[in-house]
Amino acid sequence: MNDTFLKALRGEETDYTPVWIMRQAGRYLKEYREVREGVDFLTLCKTPELAAKVSIQPVDILGVDAAILFSDILIPVEAMGMRLEFSEKHGPALSEPIRSRALLEKLIVPDPDDDLAFVPDTVRLLKSQLKVPLIGFSGAPFTLATYMIEGGSSKNFLFTKKIMYQNHGIWSGLMDKICDTVTAYLRSQIKAGADVVQLFDSWAGVLSPDDYRKYALPYVKRIIKELKNDGAPVIYFVNGCAGLLKDVKTSGAQATGIDWRVDMGEAVRKLGKNMVIQGNLDPCALLLSKDDLRGKVKDILDKARPAKGHIFNLGHGILPEIPAENARALVELVHELSEKG
Amino acid sequence: MNDTFLKALRGEETDYTPVWIMRQAGRYLKEYREVREGVDFLTLCKTPELAAKVSIQPVDILGVDAAILFSDILIPVEAMGMRLEFSEKHGPALSEPIRSRALLEKLIVPDPDDDLAFVPDTVRLLKSQLKVPLIGFSGAPFTLATYMIEGGSSKNFLFTKKIMYQNHGIWSGLMDKICDTVTAYLRSQIKAGADVVQLFDSWAGVLSPDDYRKYALPYVKRIIKELKNDGAPVIYFVNGCAGLLKDVKTSGAQATGIDWRVDMGEAVRKLGKNMVIQGNLDPCALLLSKDDLRGKVKDILDKARPAKGHIFNLGHGILPEIPAENARALVELVHELSEKG
Repeated sequence: MNDTFLKALRGEETDYTPVWIMRQAGRYLKEYREVREGVDFLTLCKTPELAAKVSIQPVDILGVDAAILFSDILIPVEAMGMRLEFSEKHGPALSEPIRSRALLEKLIVPDPDDDLAFVPDTVRLLKSQLKVPLIGFSGAPFTLATYMIEGGSSKNFLFTKKIMYQNHGIWSGLMDKICDTVTAYLRSQIKAGADVVQLFDSWAGVLSPDDYRKYALPYVKRIIKELKNDGAPVIYFVNGCAGLLKDVKTSGAQATGIDWRVDMGEAVRKLGKNMVIQGNLDPCALLLSKDDLRGKVKDILDKARPAKGHIFNLGHGILPEIPAENARALVELVHELSEKG
Repeated sequence: MNDTFLKALRGEETDYTPVWIMRQAGRYLKEYREVREGVDFLTLCKTPELAAKVSIQPVDILGVDAAILFSDILIPVEAMGMRLEFSEKHGPALSEPIRSRALLEKLIVPDPDDDLAFVPDTVRLLKSQLKVPLIGFSGAPFTLATYMIEGGSSKNFLFTKKIMYQNHGIWSGLMDKICDTVTAYLRSQIKAGADVVQLFDSWAGVLSPDDYRKYALPYVKRIIKELKNDGAPVIYFVNGCAGLLKDVKTSGAQATGIDWRVDMGEAVRKLGKNMVIQGNLDPCALLLSKDDLRGKVKDILDKARPAKGHIFNLGHGILPEIPAENARALVELVHELSEKG
């Protein structure tokens, strides 16, 4: 078992900087596209053998130091009682978005070991096959709430902010149900064998720092506190974090994942010496020549050195347009440039 | 003439904090929608009488302390030789996006007083009618380049970054032509009477700080330097600025416009005491009750106090869904809460 990733998460000395890539199981890999040819996206998420297969692909192909469960952040939302559909063109769509007390009350807190049994099943299958640690995950509460209120992706998040600002009862009721769901969901992944869990706050960056502190962060803290004795460290990824780091620092997570729109040196200073940091190469930087990429990777590694620990990653998910060999080159570069002695 | 806005821009003492609203001439106003009923968007931009009419509407209706020329950031791009179309649904579309040397070479640097004569004409018409200062504007070079390379809006800006990273010749050739165009365009607006000009860098926030410093900021500096002796202060608005402020500080502009995803107190600290700051209420905060809005406005006013000067604004354009009376309430609140003595 390669435990470099877990050591870095604990702030221990490692032989090199571990690296994994957000959305590493994905369309940029021809092996993934081959699996997807025979099956739609949601079926892939819900079929343990196939989900495990694509989760392992990037470990074999790229040589990353951790695997992540293949799934979608909206899977538990569907189990809460919303109808979920995916289209290639428009992304996810949830019908009957939650904008009223009546719809909120119809939502349930699912039992993950029953309603979402395919997820712990996938985790167990993966654990029996993997030689690297496994990351479980969930969407963070604010991010899940945006999808549930908007009914999909959004540009201005007007419906979300309308509820947030104008109807505190619905907002906190929704966030309570989401928190209970996410906590139980992550706990079931940990119980099934996930070594680490990551909370994805993909949309936290659309909030002002003041609103983030008021409407999003408290629920993240609650979940992380609940999971304190479950034995798996938490990575809290915040997309668009540059203006939020002072608050993100207090989340209680063992590690913070940051996007590329903030300087790694500044992030380390703001998150402090007791935080492990994950990130933060621009996903588009994988378009660079290997020489230019080398400079960017070295810069991030150098700037992350004062942190308690560093896990290299992109600042957001890898794009379908990136050649797989460039992703492999990144993993090699990180290992090569960070090797000690 | 109400010169509070100009005084604040010079860092002089004012009786209250001046306020204007980005996209204040827009669809949230029924008076604007009435004008738009008879004419499409581009024709409105290009008809001085109508453009002047909608520019003045928010001054009369909301009581803002400055007017801004009604136009679109892609107007000079069309004059450079690209075909521009607008659809309600998909926004702007530019045909034959610039991704080759051949297409780059076909672009011209237009003569604004000839090819874009309707713009200085609108400025002159406005100046003869306005009792508040007039802001002229242009898109900033990086932002214009994204539209020209993507052919419209984008999610990941992959084409832009591809050129930026892989073809320095095309990138710098394009940025040179854009800089020459923007400089001449803003100069023609100033000559026609614009009191102030604003550069909109709506997409700068998709760059890492390192890339911003390398691929975007130098061109902004060049334009601001060129305009140094033209007699109008420059406001440089950077959307998604939280991670870029240390660099934005060096732009040479008299004022920096900031979005809402950064704390005003932090922005003031990072931009330093010699910078006038414009911003930075979340456009969605106009959904708040007047009491809750009061708290947010007061917080921003308080935190902006140590800056050289403060111009209140939203952190981005006002949304079509906002009731006009809420915009008027904001202007009143800013005036009331900032009044001295």
